[in-house]
Amino acid sequence: MATRDKQDHWKCLFAPHSVAVVGASNTPGSWGYGIMRHLIASAKRKVYPVNPTTTEVLGIPVYDTMANIPGLVDLAVIAVSAHQVPQVMRQCVQKGVKTAVIVSGGFAESGEQGSKLEAEVVKIARQGGIRFIGPNSMGHADTSSELSILAWTGEIAPGPVALISQSGNYGHRIIHNGMSFGIGFSKFISTGNEADLRLEDYLEYLAQDGNTKVITAYIEGLREGRRFFQLAREITINKPIIVIKAGGTKESARAVRSHTTTLAGSDAVYTAAFRQAGVIRVDDDDELCDVVSALLYQPLPRGNRIGILTIGGGMGVVAAEAGEREGLEVARLTASTLEKLDTYLPPRWSHGNPVDMAGVSMAENSVTFPSLWALMEDENIDAILLQAPVGFSTKRLSSLFNSEEIKALRQEEERNLSLIRQRVIEHGKPVFMVKPAVEFVSDPDVSAFFRREGIPVYPSPRRAARVLNHLAWYRRYLNQH
Amino acid sequence: MATRDKQDHWKCLFAPHSVAVVGASNTPGSWGYGIMRHLIASAKRKVYPVNPTTTEVLGIPVYDTMANIPGLVDLAVIAVSAHQVPQVMRQCVQKGVKTAVIVSGGFAESGEQGSKLEAEVVKIARQGGIRFIGPNSMGHADTSSELSILAWTGEIAPGPVALISQSGNYGHRIIHNGMSFGIGFSKFISTGNEADLRLEDYLEYLAQDGNTKVITAYIEGLREGRRFFQLAREITINKPIIVIKAGGTKESARAVRSHTTTLAGSDAVYTAAFRQAGVIRVDDDDELCDVVSALLYQPLPRGNRIGILTIGGGMGVVAAEAGEREGLEVARLTASTLEKLDTYLPPRWSHGNPVDMAGVSMAENSVTFPSLWALMEDENIDAILLQAPVGFSTKRLSSLFNSEEIKALRQEEERNLSLIRQRVIEHGKPVFMVKPAVEFVSDPDVSAFFRREGIPVYPSPRRAARVLNHLAWYRRYLNQH
Repeated sequence: MATRDKQDHWKCLFAPHSVAVVGASNTPGSWGYGIMRHLIASAKRKVYPVNPTTTEVLGIPVYDTMANIPGLVDLAVIAVSAHQVPQVMRQCVQKGVKTAVIVSGGFAESGEQGSKLEAEVVKIARQGGIRFIGPNSMGHADTSSELSILAWTGEIAPGPVALISQSGNYGHRIIHNGMSFGIGFSKFISTGNEADLRLEDYLEYLAQDGNTKVITAYIEGLREGRRFFQLAREITINKPIIVIKAGGTKESARAVRSHTTTLAGSDAVYTAAFRQAGVIRVDDDDELCDVVSALLYQPLPRGNRIGILTIGGGMGVVAAEAGEREGLEVARLTASTLEKLDTYLPPRWSHGNPVDMAGVSMAENSVTFPSLWALMEDENIDAILLQAPVGFSTKRLSSLFNSEEIKALRQEEERNLSLIRQRVIEHGKPVFMVKPAVEFVSDPDVSAFFRREGIPVYPSPRRAARVLNHLAWYRRYLNQH
Repeated sequence: MATRDKQDHWKCLFAPHSVAVVGASNTPGSWGYGIMRHLIASAKRKVYPVNPTTTEVLGIPVYDTMANIPGLVDLAVIAVSAHQVPQVMRQCVQKGVKTAVIVSGGFAESGEQGSKLEAEVVKIARQGGIRFIGPNSMGHADTSSELSILAWTGEIAPGPVALISQSGNYGHRIIHNGMSFGIGFSKFISTGNEADLRLEDYLEYLAQDGNTKVITAYIEGLREGRRFFQLAREITINKPIIVIKAGGTKESARAVRSHTTTLAGSDAVYTAAFRQAGVIRVDDDDELCDVVSALLYQPLPRGNRIGILTIGGGMGVVAAEAGEREGLEVARLTASTLEKLDTYLPPRWSHGNPVDMAGVSMAENSVTFPSLWALMEDENIDAILLQAPVGFSTKRLSSLFNSEEIKALRQEEERNLSLIRQRVIEHGKPVFMVKPAVEFVSDPDVSAFFRREGIPVYPSPRRAARVLNHLAWYRRYLNQH
């Protein structure tokens, strides 16, 4: 396929002017209904429902067949029974449709007969010049063109993160979890059986996509492993790629074969190949969202030596242990830092890293801030785990103040956070907030507030430490490539 | 100390009729103020503030010295500067006080001089027959007697879980995190420097405490290791003990020495000793709360073979992988189960474990329930990870129904959950709910609802699998002892 053709196809898939929905339906709970509801939410395109058994779907006149649609069709959504799909694909060819997405299941994933049917559909599409997503896809979405054909996923927050998923349900989970972390998405593709377009095609496309700054993927098995890793090596120099690769154990590999008919492959081989290509591999969707949050808001640390600032000794112990277990080094403070901290902190401070401020409470930013700056200036420290309030807590907000005072407090705290943010940029050292207790920064409002100021909040030192280790590794990788 | 004396001391510590607060204060943010606020919240006892520089605290008349308190004093709370503590302890002896808790810091944890001061306080208390918590304690609480002298922790939900913590702050974190999991507490002790009463004493006491069904602890170092493990061996036969043992890495061990002057000890030795004594060791407070939730609501599994029921193939793959990585076995279904599932599920189901119901949606409990029962009846399965809606989702609740319909739906779903609960008890097989996506069971109301019906909800298959592995191990331990 020539580059020009390719671009046309991608445009028709992700920013079509017109979409036909074959199998559009008025039955809530059906694919044809869910897809229609999402499609008509945007006025950006013509939507043509197709269904011989009804005259109107969600107030829009229905065509009995593709041929009777008056205008051009850039994208055909196919949501009919598997056995009808070859016929629909033929009609698409006749209509001159450029691209399609097949959400119907019952193809290669369901056995030999399904495989034959799938091969037939591919043949028809190839001959007619149609590129398609699926079959057995849960759909795709593009927030910049306001396209969504996802029957089950609600509105997706726009943002710089693309997701390619070899599981529709798990992709749905990642999207929703990501949004609860404040992550916005550029594009989402549920790849389905990848009978035509493959994960590697989407990766190549997203590398060039201006709206995508970070690429994420849920992978069960690669059909073009060599191509994937070649592409990844080029892409990760500019855009981070974070993947969940499932099927790394005996039974999960068996489940992969049953799910999408791919071979999960040797886990150790995958791990090595990901590392050689600069790809960050994570275990689950929480870790994926943790890493993405850090990449969006923070600089990459120069190394893996952490400084830990806490209000309690126990928290420091647990943070140091989490750091070491996740591959980080607990930094030795320089003499100059020790001297500075001696002047800021009460005599019973820990006199070392982790820096236990020994009960200095949230009211005393006059102590917390200079201590934090001292750690940021320490040349032995590459990143900081901050497990201390910086004047912001729901507790402090909740009961003691009237609304005017709350407003003033929020403004003061906004200034506090942007002070931290400034130093983060100045020193090129990430600061990861670890919430010291549940009542603090468990409020989604407060977490969102921190994120707006570019400070991600992690629920435990272990999760923060794991992310820092990924980031330090990625920085090392970039330095060497 | 004779048993009778011991019981008297514990009674004075945890259910005192009268408490003196030496260092009571009107200054918000001070220990003496925070403690007074919590103490007077209960009408169950006389509270005597003591402070020579003020006449009234929170509306209660103040005594200038212990000697002038008219009645008996069961418990003295000591919240004055370290150097004043010996003098206060002498006054306690003269007054005939039985027990004390010293929240003041500046003792052994702060160096040689502090150690001498601590030894002096111990000597005075021993000679006067006073047993005490601390120094450098953040206080203690007993929900059944409505006692709280915790300056910084809000009201604690009552329940069957006791917590002994060698870090006040981390204990505070566990309490708050636990409450967000719906866990209630019987007693909480911040042990401080353990100059007199030690973690082992509290453990011995809690073993006999009728309000405590589960004992948890945050441990940095054991002063009487042999005694601890001897006690634990006896206790775990009846009451589970779950511990976080910090200081298992080089730098965290160093931080432990700096924090509470104890030696963290060899991590491998601790791990082996915990296992021999039937103690469940966890890594952090999330895992602790995960395990406690399971122990409170579910039976122990007979083995480590799991059945996985999901609505999506990807979720099944990730759950199988998480299970294997955490030491569980993905069960082989019996022929009878396969037959049953063939009749309930659409032809494209996964035909094996993980059981991917292939998109059977939340509306179709008529499919989910028989499938779940089939897994529960399978003799190859010891526990079930359920990653599928059972007719309950905030999404379903949120938009489609009026309040009458919502009420009817909730009732229907309550019946659904209690049906599951019944089978759990009948088969003695735990069912762990893993939320399939964020919008589902992320609502605290909904999680609480599941818990009320005895079904704990876990945010990821990995966390659920880790808990199941702990429980299966504990059951094996109990079978052998």
